[in-house]
Amino acid sequence: MDNRPIGIFDSGLGGLTCVKEVLRIMPSEDIIYFGDTGRVPYGTRGADTIVKYVRQDINFLKSFDIKYIIIACGTASSAALPNIQGEYDIEISGVLEPAARLAVKATKNNKIGVLGTSGTIKSGKYAEFIENLNPDAKVFQQACPMFVPLVENGYIDSEVTELIANEYLEPMKREKVDTIILGCTHYPLLKPVISRIMGDNVTLIDSGAAAADYAKLRLDELGLSCDKNKKGNVKYFVSDTVESFSELGGLFLNREIQGGVSRIEIEKY
Amino acid sequence: MDNRPIGIFDSGLGGLTCVKEVLRIMPSEDIIYFGDTGRVPYGTRGADTIVKYVRQDINFLKSFDIKYIIIACGTASSAALPNIQGEYDIEISGVLEPAARLAVKATKNNKIGVLGTSGTIKSGKYAEFIENLNPDAKVFQQACPMFVPLVENGYIDSEVTELIANEYLEPMKREKVDTIILGCTHYPLLKPVISRIMGDNVTLIDSGAAAADYAKLRLDELGLSCDKNKKGNVKYFVSDTVESFSELGGLFLNREIQGGVSRIEIEKY
Repeated sequence: MDNRPIGIFDSGLGGLTCVKEVLRIMPSEDIIYFGDTGRVPYGTRGADTIVKYVRQDINFLKSFDIKYIIIACGTASSAALPNIQGEYDIEISGVLEPAARLAVKATKNNKIGVLGTSGTIKSGKYAEFIENLNPDAKVFQQACPMFVPLVENGYIDSEVTELIANEYLEPMKREKVDTIILGCTHYPLLKPVISRIMGDNVTLIDSGAAAADYAKLRLDELGLSCDKNKKGNVKYFVSDTVESFSELGGLFLNREIQGGVSRIEIEKY
Repeated sequence: MDNRPIGIFDSGLGGLTCVKEVLRIMPSEDIIYFGDTGRVPYGTRGADTIVKYVRQDINFLKSFDIKYIIIACGTASSAALPNIQGEYDIEISGVLEPAARLAVKATKNNKIGVLGTSGTIKSGKYAEFIENLNPDAKVFQQACPMFVPLVENGYIDSEVTELIANEYLEPMKREKVDTIILGCTHYPLLKPVISRIMGDNVTLIDSGAAAADYAKLRLDELGLSCDKNKKGNVKYFVSDTVESFSELGGLFLNREIQGGVSRIEIEKY
């Protein structure tokens, strides 16, 4: 039993879709969340810039006495996790392997689609994980660089979103994929639009939720789960103003941000 | 006569619309350009984050022996320029006052529209400058947070861009403005769409070009113009990968990026 908090970070707000699932399945755990809102988005940046930012994000979380880190960001998981995994003395897991496992389980025709940021798709890491788990799987990848700005500007279920989603999903429809990984933690907010275009028979894998489920499994395996009789607590930290995070955050969390939000200087870590 | 280079910076690529005009009207001047591509966009961030970034941008440019700085970014000009103007020993000008002057000259019905990022519009600085120059002017402001991601993802003249532009411009049409400031240096790329929606009788003011014209005037007044017999040289610096800048930069400059592009660590300044 270990009552130290879990550290979770994302480039900005998207990671809150993972926090939402952690709150649901591990309501007793304490969480330290960092959203790098001063440098969001990661998805359009070069791989070494992302690795530099991710190291700082981890160093910040490690300034607390945490027991585990979840990278709740598709871009950070794919660009940085393989490079930095060995550098730290606590376990760090991301969204890639958990989402790939669920997709391989869910598919019936072995045709799996992956939607992600430009950085995530360029890395090819989702496809690598899927093909390692199931060499018969065919993976169809699509970079969706407009999805994050659409979500962050409130275009959740609009004509514009539908037009852009149609463009991105057209190859997936043509190839008749039966399972799609929402490879960026912003994308679960677009589930209604994506479902409408792809149809009800296509399974959508929420990578943030998958990351939370996987972390629960690992915490149990490692004997790091907390006392189930206590109530968990979340502390939020951001690198831009607190106001915009508090305003938009509720949209991702599907409830108001409770507890304090503080601002930090991430460049110092 | 002063042959030292002019420093120009922007949050990313947009400032190249200003460089384009400097190359046209001051072809002999040397330029040091910095695009903060590792932290773009500025327009959605809080004012004090922007001020911090702008100080670092200026410190980097000042590490060269430059004679003048142009802030070729609507957000940086409105959030930071008034705060930092007195801190440096060389003159710094932005896009606000130059564009406001042109707009006040151009309008016939005293109804002026301003399009900008959320940060720019929140600051209200364009309206302030216009109303100071012409107390009879009525200013209609509109934040256009989707324009930068649309431009940076190549949606220059598409159905999606038209839909979003229609939404942003509807109040300007209703109010019958006859002059619109493109208050962010990305927006000149959307001139064809904006013109089509507003009609040919509405004057569009390119804030990056206005900033270049104003800087030429000030350099002449201050006796800082260079030897006209030499050919100017541009050096580009960025805070993310060089590749993406070189690829997309040509779109803004309307010709290939010539000369070297180097990457720097802006956090160190």
